[in-house]
Amino acid sequence: MEERAKEMQEQERRIKIRMAKIKHKLAILSGKGGVGKSTIAANLAIALARKGYKVGVLDVDIHGPSIPKILGIRGRELATGPPGIFPAKGPLDIRVVSMDFLLPDDETPVIWRGPMKMGAIRQFLADVAWGNLDFLLIDLPPGTGDEPLSIMQLISDIDGILMITAPSEVSQIVVKRAIGFTRELRVPLVGVIENMSGFVCPKCGAEFDILGIGGGQKISEELGVPFLGKIPIDQRICEDSDRGTPFIIEHAETPAAKAFMQVVDKVEGYLKQRGTQA
Amino acid sequence: MEERAKEMQEQERRIKIRMAKIKHKLAILSGKGGVGKSTIAANLAIALARKGYKVGVLDVDIHGPSIPKILGIRGRELATGPPGIFPAKGPLDIRVVSMDFLLPDDETPVIWRGPMKMGAIRQFLADVAWGNLDFLLIDLPPGTGDEPLSIMQLISDIDGILMITAPSEVSQIVVKRAIGFTRELRVPLVGVIENMSGFVCPKCGAEFDILGIGGGQKISEELGVPFLGKIPIDQRICEDSDRGTPFIIEHAETPAAKAFMQVVDKVEGYLKQRGTQA
Repeated sequence: MEERAKEMQEQERRIKIRMAKIKHKLAILSGKGGVGKSTIAANLAIALARKGYKVGVLDVDIHGPSIPKILGIRGRELATGPPGIFPAKGPLDIRVVSMDFLLPDDETPVIWRGPMKMGAIRQFLADVAWGNLDFLLIDLPPGTGDEPLSIMQLISDIDGILMITAPSEVSQIVVKRAIGFTRELRVPLVGVIENMSGFVCPKCGAEFDILGIGGGQKISEELGVPFLGKIPIDQRICEDSDRGTPFIIEHAETPAAKAFMQVVDKVEGYLKQRGTQA
Repeated sequence: MEERAKEMQEQERRIKIRMAKIKHKLAILSGKGGVGKSTIAANLAIALARKGYKVGVLDVDIHGPSIPKILGIRGRELATGPPGIFPAKGPLDIRVVSMDFLLPDDETPVIWRGPMKMGAIRQFLADVAWGNLDFLLIDLPPGTGDEPLSIMQLISDIDGILMITAPSEVSQIVVKRAIGFTRELRVPLVGVIENMSGFVCPKCGAEFDILGIGGGQKISEELGVPFLGKIPIDQRICEDSDRGTPFIIEHAETPAAKAFMQVVDKVEGYLKQRGTQA
């Protein structure tokens, strides 16, 4: 038992050393599933890499990892060397670690309880040779359980959380609890992003609030947290994600891509204001 | 330690007795979040109750419980008496148990690791006085971790799993792993439902595959599992869920409601075929 404790201490020491080489750590959280966390994390990584930053993405969705698919790098293998496990390299030299690289096929489930997941996350942080990065984006799974809790406890200097919500009231309630989670753990919140906000018919131009509208703004006002913007529904986002091509590059001129770039500017502004400019 | 083991044995005995009074247990799973598990669970409950069945819904989404909101019964309290904890009563006498009833407000998060969640689920099954039911629908959270694992281990005679997917490829990969999960645990699968499948512009009638189309059918063919149908995107589903009024009653004549009722028929057909007609 004592040996196990020593081993964990040693692991935490390694995590500290690895994390000290990364200037900014941002986590993407929601509480709710299917609101576009992974799509936003992947596109944010691309946007930052295009600005010249060195970027890594840690996909903490152990059961349903989607980052490799969205970045078009499924099937890669993680090499290992003396410095540790090397992340896979995605577009624009983005470094990616995901459970998806460790699974033999699409049908293999990850049937793990909390402690197993905690173990995997500890390893991702302690043994991956991320190297010197400007940004590590951490894509969290739905819920406020083991995975986000482990991340918040293991990385003591997270710069902030990006909270993603869909516009619906059902989503808002879940996301409010996730904001409560960040407050209870005293992790700073960058702000709220409303995703899948309204739909403009590409044929007739009529606007529809398919999944509602305004939920992010409402949360922001009610709970006094910054609002980072709303990204409209655009079927090309889904198509690009399925194809593994970054939407914000492929469709840079769309309202959705522009809304997205405004979010990126606000994230940079947030870091500047905190005095921790990348 | 021995006392704890005895206590758990005693709890499992109580679970057996409670569950024996319920004819059919169906679990709604996806692996992926935000694909409409809770909306489908709530509307399935309504559809079954309208056919005269006695129905209960157990909301196992500990971090993001949504069933009470969708059924319009938020804010209820769970009473306790000598037989145990009484479920809240929803429309058409549907009995509902959810973490949502136990939380003081919208901002309180449930920051629980796996073992805490396991404890809550054990209690929901062992101590809730469901009474005699025809159906217990179990709404599971995203992922294939603690919550679904606990349910599958504690209820030995689940009639089947309804697997929900969105049409996108990103969703398909996650859902395939969830099907792998049911196979590994040897729990029967009723079939796959494709939700949010295509969108018809209410103004001009043009059709768009906002979140893709055909993903459910594809999974069904690839993995050889029954396909239960696809439910198109309809913004009234979201509006009704936010209002807490059942979509399939409020908008019975829509293609989405009709698609949904076909799913219900197939579920009944499945149970009939298994020789366990309700």
